[in-house]
Amino acid sequence: MEVTNKYITINTHIEGAPQESDFELKAAALSLSVEPGSNDVIVKNLYLSIDPYQINRMKSFSSSQKTSDFAVGIIPGQAIDAFGVGRVVASGNPKFEKDDLVAGVISWGEYSVVGGATMLNKLDPMGFPLSYHVGILGFSGLTAYGGFFEVCKPKKGEKVFVSAASGSVGNLVGQYAKLFGCYVVGCAGSKQKVELLKEKLGFDDAFNYKEETDLKSTLKRYFPDGIDIYFDNVGAEMLEAAVANMNAFGRVAVCGVISEYTDKRKRAAPDMLDVVYKRITIQGFLAADYLNVYADFLSTTSDHLRTGKMQVLEDISQGVESVPSAFIGLFRSDNIGKKIVQIADD
Amino acid sequence: MEVTNKYITINTHIEGAPQESDFELKAAALSLSVEPGSNDVIVKNLYLSIDPYQINRMKSFSSSQKTSDFAVGIIPGQAIDAFGVGRVVASGNPKFEKDDLVAGVISWGEYSVVGGATMLNKLDPMGFPLSYHVGILGFSGLTAYGGFFEVCKPKKGEKVFVSAASGSVGNLVGQYAKLFGCYVVGCAGSKQKVELLKEKLGFDDAFNYKEETDLKSTLKRYFPDGIDIYFDNVGAEMLEAAVANMNAFGRVAVCGVISEYTDKRKRAAPDMLDVVYKRITIQGFLAADYLNVYADFLSTTSDHLRTGKMQVLEDISQGVESVPSAFIGLFRSDNIGKKIVQIADD
Repeated sequence: MEVTNKYITINTHIEGAPQESDFELKAAALSLSVEPGSNDVIVKNLYLSIDPYQINRMKSFSSSQKTSDFAVGIIPGQAIDAFGVGRVVASGNPKFEKDDLVAGVISWGEYSVVGGATMLNKLDPMGFPLSYHVGILGFSGLTAYGGFFEVCKPKKGEKVFVSAASGSVGNLVGQYAKLFGCYVVGCAGSKQKVELLKEKLGFDDAFNYKEETDLKSTLKRYFPDGIDIYFDNVGAEMLEAAVANMNAFGRVAVCGVISEYTDKRKRAAPDMLDVVYKRITIQGFLAADYLNVYADFLSTTSDHLRTGKMQVLEDISQGVESVPSAFIGLFRSDNIGKKIVQIADD
Repeated sequence: MEVTNKYITINTHIEGAPQESDFELKAAALSLSVEPGSNDVIVKNLYLSIDPYQINRMKSFSSSQKTSDFAVGIIPGQAIDAFGVGRVVASGNPKFEKDDLVAGVISWGEYSVVGGATMLNKLDPMGFPLSYHVGILGFSGLTAYGGFFEVCKPKKGEKVFVSAASGSVGNLVGQYAKLFGCYVVGCAGSKQKVELLKEKLGFDDAFNYKEETDLKSTLKRYFPDGIDIYFDNVGAEMLEAAVANMNAFGRVAVCGVISEYTDKRKRAAPDMLDVVYKRITIQGFLAADYLNVYADFLSTTSDHLRTGKMQVLEDISQGVESVPSAFIGLFRSDNIGKKIVQIADD
């Protein structure tokens, strides 16, 4: 059987904030069967994870492209791989059978042809909606869990600050931190998001950074006793302000620096005197380094979901055509929670 | 018995690079006996440690002053406490007797009156010159040892970069790293220092940063396979260049940022994309946090000295009058190795 596979490409390398015109919806005939002897897996894509880090792959050059398998540069005109959930249509790989649910690296399109399939796994939905496996039970969840517990090494009662706190990872970090017994303040970019953090997710406090002119003073107001842990998703001035307000032996987990991704001139220049005298640790990390806690993460998080202790914040667009606008919206902080595109019904 | 005690004070808070005119030599009568019931210890100062961090204590404000007992602000006109070695002249404290050798917090003067004496200890010179106990066997040594082994957590064969490598701490870090089995490159500010690093201290390579225009390219040249550990004593552009050249899971120990101490506008703005994707850890530290390895440090280092495996790099000036110029010289990189002032004969 042959279908027309619609997929998204970039027209050109992207250096600043992404625009609709940077993307193109392409269509190509695709045979839904695998050649004898091939190891390929053909996946019908169901849900795609839309993540800010992909912008670094779309640049003509970024130091990020050299340092990690899944951060390699994206070539204009070619399919764009991304984390997602799908169903196997045909498989030459003995690990997979037709109709298997899978999670892993698929692509921004209706179908994915996955060669080798080293980054694809069978998915047991465990009774949860499939979209959960793209976000809270997927890489966003592992990023939050590994970053908070393994990088930040929290102690009960510590004061935690989370930026982009209504984003895919931030909202989960805040929830893990609250459940663990920390005091948690988040920042976000709208009144609605701030309300949501306080009302729905149980943050101790939250503020709209767009209404603040002096972030150092703002954080001083929200943390009169200082910050012990800063989970950084944005970089730039916010990182500087957090370091200035940090307590002795404070820890910064640098998960992402979205404000620096689309503006090279934006750079955090934290006061290194603070770093020395307060013995601050600033540590970058990738979720892939914490696969050792994956089983813990999955059982803890699914328990919290079943008992209603964690809330799911999803922002789902429909159809492959919506991928570019979903992605572009990340850099305009349009999304509330995990940005997902549903490509097809389960 | 009463003497005239000459000591050094600051006239005013110092905001930029220190000048001779910022300091004053004062003299005051001092009785060399303690009142009955007093806990004071009167110490005849012999050797004083001259350290760059003191400049942060001399500012009208520095965030450093809030965060550590020995980093509190210095008040103009008052005695300036500092690490050193001396001999007890009189003691009301049962821990000390007349003629005991002591090491710890004394002051920039000929005599120190130490109240409480919680930061003073009896000194066993172990057959080494007393000056060693101010530098290589004192806090400079512990800083290098704790910083390198506990903060950097080196593995044999790793590539280590040390800035201010002929300075009090840097020269020891390089030597520890070589003895441990790392590849070590240092930078310093003169041809003579560079030669010394390579010829006398056994660094694998060294360069004069003043002759380089693009530090990122310079480090690429000296570390074609990347840097695993950067021991930072200077901050600013050098820190940025080191992060750019770092390998995955690289570690930066921030010991000091001398180029930022006297120029607030100088700030390192390392590329946080590198920090994230290369999972770099940037960690500030103070030697005082590593007293748990003090015994190890002392036995290891004294063994290395006895077997001739470590070299001692001292730069000793004579007399209390020379303290200001010795201190000022640190910020002009006049010193080669540990800067010490000998106040009196042993």
